[in-house]
Amino acid sequence: MTGPAQRRVGVIGLGAMGLGVAAVLVRHGFEVFGCDVRAGALEKLRQAGGIACDTPAEVGLRCDVVIILVVNASQTEQVLFGNDGALARMRRGSVVIACATTSADFVLGLGQRLTEQEVLLLDAPVTGGVKGAAEGSLTVLASGPPEAFLACEDVLEAISSRVCRFGGAHGLGSKAKMVNQLLVGVHIAAAAEAMALAVREGLDPKVLYEAIRSGAGSSWAFCDRVPRMVEGTFEPETALDIFVKDLGLVLDAARANVFPTPLAATAYQMFVSASAIGYGQQDDSAIIKLFPAVNR
Amino acid sequence: MTGPAQRRVGVIGLGAMGLGVAAVLVRHGFEVFGCDVRAGALEKLRQAGGIACDTPAEVGLRCDVVIILVVNASQTEQVLFGNDGALARMRRGSVVIACATTSADFVLGLGQRLTEQEVLLLDAPVTGGVKGAAEGSLTVLASGPPEAFLACEDVLEAISSRVCRFGGAHGLGSKAKMVNQLLVGVHIAAAAEAMALAVREGLDPKVLYEAIRSGAGSSWAFCDRVPRMVEGTFEPETALDIFVKDLGLVLDAARANVFPTPLAATAYQMFVSASAIGYGQQDDSAIIKLFPAVNR
Repeated sequence: MTGPAQRRVGVIGLGAMGLGVAAVLVRHGFEVFGCDVRAGALEKLRQAGGIACDTPAEVGLRCDVVIILVVNASQTEQVLFGNDGALARMRRGSVVIACATTSADFVLGLGQRLTEQEVLLLDAPVTGGVKGAAEGSLTVLASGPPEAFLACEDVLEAISSRVCRFGGAHGLGSKAKMVNQLLVGVHIAAAAEAMALAVREGLDPKVLYEAIRSGAGSSWAFCDRVPRMVEGTFEPETALDIFVKDLGLVLDAARANVFPTPLAATAYQMFVSASAIGYGQQDDSAIIKLFPAVNR
Repeated sequence: MTGPAQRRVGVIGLGAMGLGVAAVLVRHGFEVFGCDVRAGALEKLRQAGGIACDTPAEVGLRCDVVIILVVNASQTEQVLFGNDGALARMRRGSVVIACATTSADFVLGLGQRLTEQEVLLLDAPVTGGVKGAAEGSLTVLASGPPEAFLACEDVLEAISSRVCRFGGAHGLGSKAKMVNQLLVGVHIAAAAEAMALAVREGLDPKVLYEAIRSGAGSSWAFCDRVPRMVEGTFEPETALDIFVKDLGLVLDAARANVFPTPLAATAYQMFVSASAIGYGQQDDSAIIKLFPAVNR
């Protein structure tokens, strides 16, 4: 049985986010090619209906749209330009959707290097987490040339519920993500500080959680992370070290701008203290363990 | 025409919050007696269907339930124990609902002094702001003896959509409010820091606001205050100095407990810096003026 040719999309990086996005794309009728250094991830991709590739180069060869859902700049660098990297095999006019949270400077440089190969770049960090990825309801914080948006409009529509356009220049999407992470990081740290103080003051944390979550003191991070803090289970959903990295990006940008960010600086010190104690690979809600006598 | 005797309630302190609560009580069929040092407020009370009294003593004489909606501990002290204070005229078994944000220690002392007069005290700070007061949808963070709750159940039901009970001891309600204010204060300051950095980075603040408000970086305070920050209009809805006071209460409690509150301490320094420059009576969103080149 033959039907119309399916549109091909590559997903490089098959962590929980990448696997969620790949499965959503399969459900939307795309032919999905993926790769990851972890063999277990490839098996999960096959189970979701995707096609496992051995290298980023193979993904680049087969797809005109390649989504990169790795963790940081160095991994993005590696899968594009490293051994068996994708870029060398990508066709002219194809598009890379770069989703890792990195510095705007890194993305700017990336755009220049891809342009030399006549490959388009969309600066496109995402928010919405593992849940948003699995449901196709991510928010994409995007910037890049109109051709790049055009080349992957159908893919963005499948994986996200909202594409926020910050302009034609690479880096603006990454700056928006950085500001978002400033807020999430400060809010998680503030939730921990507030709940720890509350317990020390003799308040029932569950009654307090219910009192605050639908009122003026609430934040998305408070609602999402405080139950984990109160339960005291710190199985990693987002690793604490992610915020050491992301608040580090905020502080780098602020220093480059000679701009004050007192709360981001304080929250960074809290996350890095927790990481230095050894909680870096636990869930970021484990930051509450910095405070005395709560859920050890 | 005579009907069944109306239940009488007193409201001492007729700022925007007190007037809203008084109007809601009138609409619920209570006979509302109010007082305030500002003559204009008394006129507004009359327009809302309430009965203006000259002194707190007069309110105390006429009502078995007295709500105190002043700003802080010293005003609460004044309207209860000062010249023409309410307490001396209140009947045994009547109840004071103390709503100002004060220290738990102050409320504990208040409870002892009222008990000596056989007057009940409900420690009952509220959240939900002017809007919640006007709509009868406040959240009450309450603690106190069961008799105190019983004596004003109908009044609480009229003015609030939710009564969170923190226990029988005075002070627990105030501690819960303090923790709530820690969060609101940090969230407002973080919203200012994030939006100021975003503008410096060249992001469109309106696109960014829309991107963040329904995502993981969102908070109630972000959604509520950022439009005022972006507009640059700082007509006071909540005065900035309120957070100098409320974060000061957090730092006092933390010091008394030998407990760290790094984010509250940083946010306090931001609010007190803004107050020292002269923004204390502007809206608390004016904290963004601490940052360079945004909405002067």
